[in-house]
Amino acid sequence: MFRNFKIVPNIVFGRGSFSQLDDILAARRTAPEAAMVFLVDDVFENSDFESKIPRHPGDLILWVNVDDEPKTSYVDQLTQTTRAYMKDTLKPLPDGVIGIGGGSTLDLAKAVSLMLTNPGSSADYQGWDLIKHPAVYHVAVPTLSGTGAEVSRTTVLTGPQKKLGINSDYTVYDQIVLDPELTAGAPARQRFYTGMDCYIHCAESLNGTYLNTFSQSYGEKAMDLCRDVFLRKDPESDDKLMMASYFGGMSIAYSQVGVSHALSYGLSFVLGTHHGVGNCVVFNCLEEYYPKEVEEFHLMLEKNQIELPRDVVGNLEPDRMDKMIDVALSLDPLWENALGADWKKTMTRTKAQELYSRM
Amino acid sequence: MFRNFKIVPNIVFGRGSFSQLDDILAARRTAPEAAMVFLVDDVFENSDFESKIPRHPGDLILWVNVDDEPKTSYVDQLTQTTRAYMKDTLKPLPDGVIGIGGGSTLDLAKAVSLMLTNPGSSADYQGWDLIKHPAVYHVAVPTLSGTGAEVSRTTVLTGPQKKLGINSDYTVYDQIVLDPELTAGAPARQRFYTGMDCYIHCAESLNGTYLNTFSQSYGEKAMDLCRDVFLRKDPESDDKLMMASYFGGMSIAYSQVGVSHALSYGLSFVLGTHHGVGNCVVFNCLEEYYPKEVEEFHLMLEKNQIELPRDVVGNLEPDRMDKMIDVALSLDPLWENALGADWKKTMTRTKAQELYSRM
Repeated sequence: MFRNFKIVPNIVFGRGSFSQLDDILAARRTAPEAAMVFLVDDVFENSDFESKIPRHPGDLILWVNVDDEPKTSYVDQLTQTTRAYMKDTLKPLPDGVIGIGGGSTLDLAKAVSLMLTNPGSSADYQGWDLIKHPAVYHVAVPTLSGTGAEVSRTTVLTGPQKKLGINSDYTVYDQIVLDPELTAGAPARQRFYTGMDCYIHCAESLNGTYLNTFSQSYGEKAMDLCRDVFLRKDPESDDKLMMASYFGGMSIAYSQVGVSHALSYGLSFVLGTHHGVGNCVVFNCLEEYYPKEVEEFHLMLEKNQIELPRDVVGNLEPDRMDKMIDVALSLDPLWENALGADWKKTMTRTKAQELYSRM
Repeated sequence: MFRNFKIVPNIVFGRGSFSQLDDILAARRTAPEAAMVFLVDDVFENSDFESKIPRHPGDLILWVNVDDEPKTSYVDQLTQTTRAYMKDTLKPLPDGVIGIGGGSTLDLAKAVSLMLTNPGSSADYQGWDLIKHPAVYHVAVPTLSGTGAEVSRTTVLTGPQKKLGINSDYTVYDQIVLDPELTAGAPARQRFYTGMDCYIHCAESLNGTYLNTFSQSYGEKAMDLCRDVFLRKDPESDDKLMMASYFGGMSIAYSQVGVSHALSYGLSFVLGTHHGVGNCVVFNCLEEYYPKEVEEFHLMLEKNQIELPRDVVGNLEPDRMDKMIDVALSLDPLWENALGADWKKTMTRTKAQELYSRM
């Protein structure tokens, strides 16, 4: 059985294409009094960019803070705020939810668009294909490149019990607007860590047991584009990194991430480390599993003058280390992709702890 | 203004995935008595493959002959046959149209799915965005790789006046099933000519003035995959050529084909030359425009022991040569992409005739 892969059906790509968002949304506004809800990274609040958001009277902007990884409680709170806002309008649901920001913001927007039409808490839906009702129409405008959140069928959330995505065909965006100009202003470190998310998940996909030619074609090209950006400093780096992110996301279609993502999920859950940073901290210690790619990653660190945080795990209390290992080892599909069906024979708790202790 | 690019939203890729077609269609059958219409290349009539087509009672199989390039008159005839068949059912329209075959068959299925919901002759819609109503749900199952018909927003038809596609967002398939096993049985020559359609349109796209990073990323990878298939005889050639075709089609999103396609349209219109062959015959003489790629193409011819037809144009009567040039030079966007806005200064009738006379 092969997955019938749902992909984002409408794409605009181009420098300056953000200016077309208003026209794109116009076609979806059901009435003058209908509302669009913009979830926007709060780094843009009171910036020049704010005035470019095509907000109409009646629309709602929710400035979201992503200093922490997206939590299910935050999704539930944003959903409640939106519902409360809609009570004062003539319609129960907004015409659209538009996420503008990096991977965390795009994941929050996906989750809110799903939770507006599905009852309960977003924590109830962490897993695979648990969502019952289609989401509100939702649009992604990435302002950072690398996570692939703009194209993936997941929204990765930290819940009370686990860090796990809401994986569903309904999670997939209806429209993406890929404007490389929007990514130009990101700080170099953030740009690097987010870009490396793409490089690392392609390394995991290409070395995984789930791989087929569809995922391989996308993954190989995404890595080539990352090399142009982070080793060759290509003058079209903004454009290329945006395509790398898209291709990297597509590469996961018939594949999975692996050792790095599994361990970094544990790290983020217990220590709150942001995904991009955590992934790099973990991958840096994985020569054993991805020797060529970790070597190239070290070269990328050097070329881009990035110093990774050291002693991140340090002398962690035993119960927190246990929890970190619990979270990491609960991600069966990731381990199976990385190490095969017998993964439990080699990836023991002792081995996981040994890997963590290097970080 | 950048195109808001509509892409096929559902993809299955995998060896043997054709066996999932029945399940995919089941979700679209509105009632037991509803009909699916299969347009299938007649090379499969009475073959082992015929029994694998998931035909239910009440479904219609139309065996289509693609010895000639698809004509608007043929589309109109197939549409009439379908309409007449549906008169005996309880519904005016079938639940789906499924194209199974190479690029010509896939184009015919696209055109029929459009013409079932749009009045008049398919010749009325040759051009850009002339279609008014969404098509019937339509699915592509390619059995040859290279044309990109499974992903493109056009269906190329030869009409009474011109060879030109029905270009529309509604043309795009709703679902594609990419099963590399289905392409294994194609004759080597046909496989080569169809595969070269991909190589050639990527060469035109990558050397065109319309190119952006989206199209470039897809085009470069498609050409790499073609090299694996036709220069290195990669053991996964069926899979790779299928992905090359998909990537090649995606590459045209923000780009266009160029000199080879323009001239080959003239050739096909006047001489009836099949697109794959015509494109190769033309490209073979285009060192002036695509020097590196034509050199590599010559290597591919040699490695795959393909002898191109010679003296295809020969001593053509002046009025037929005039018509050939008329058709080729009417394709403004192709020339503008290839040679820039001033293309008329260099691509004169004399120049076009000179190029044709080499073929």
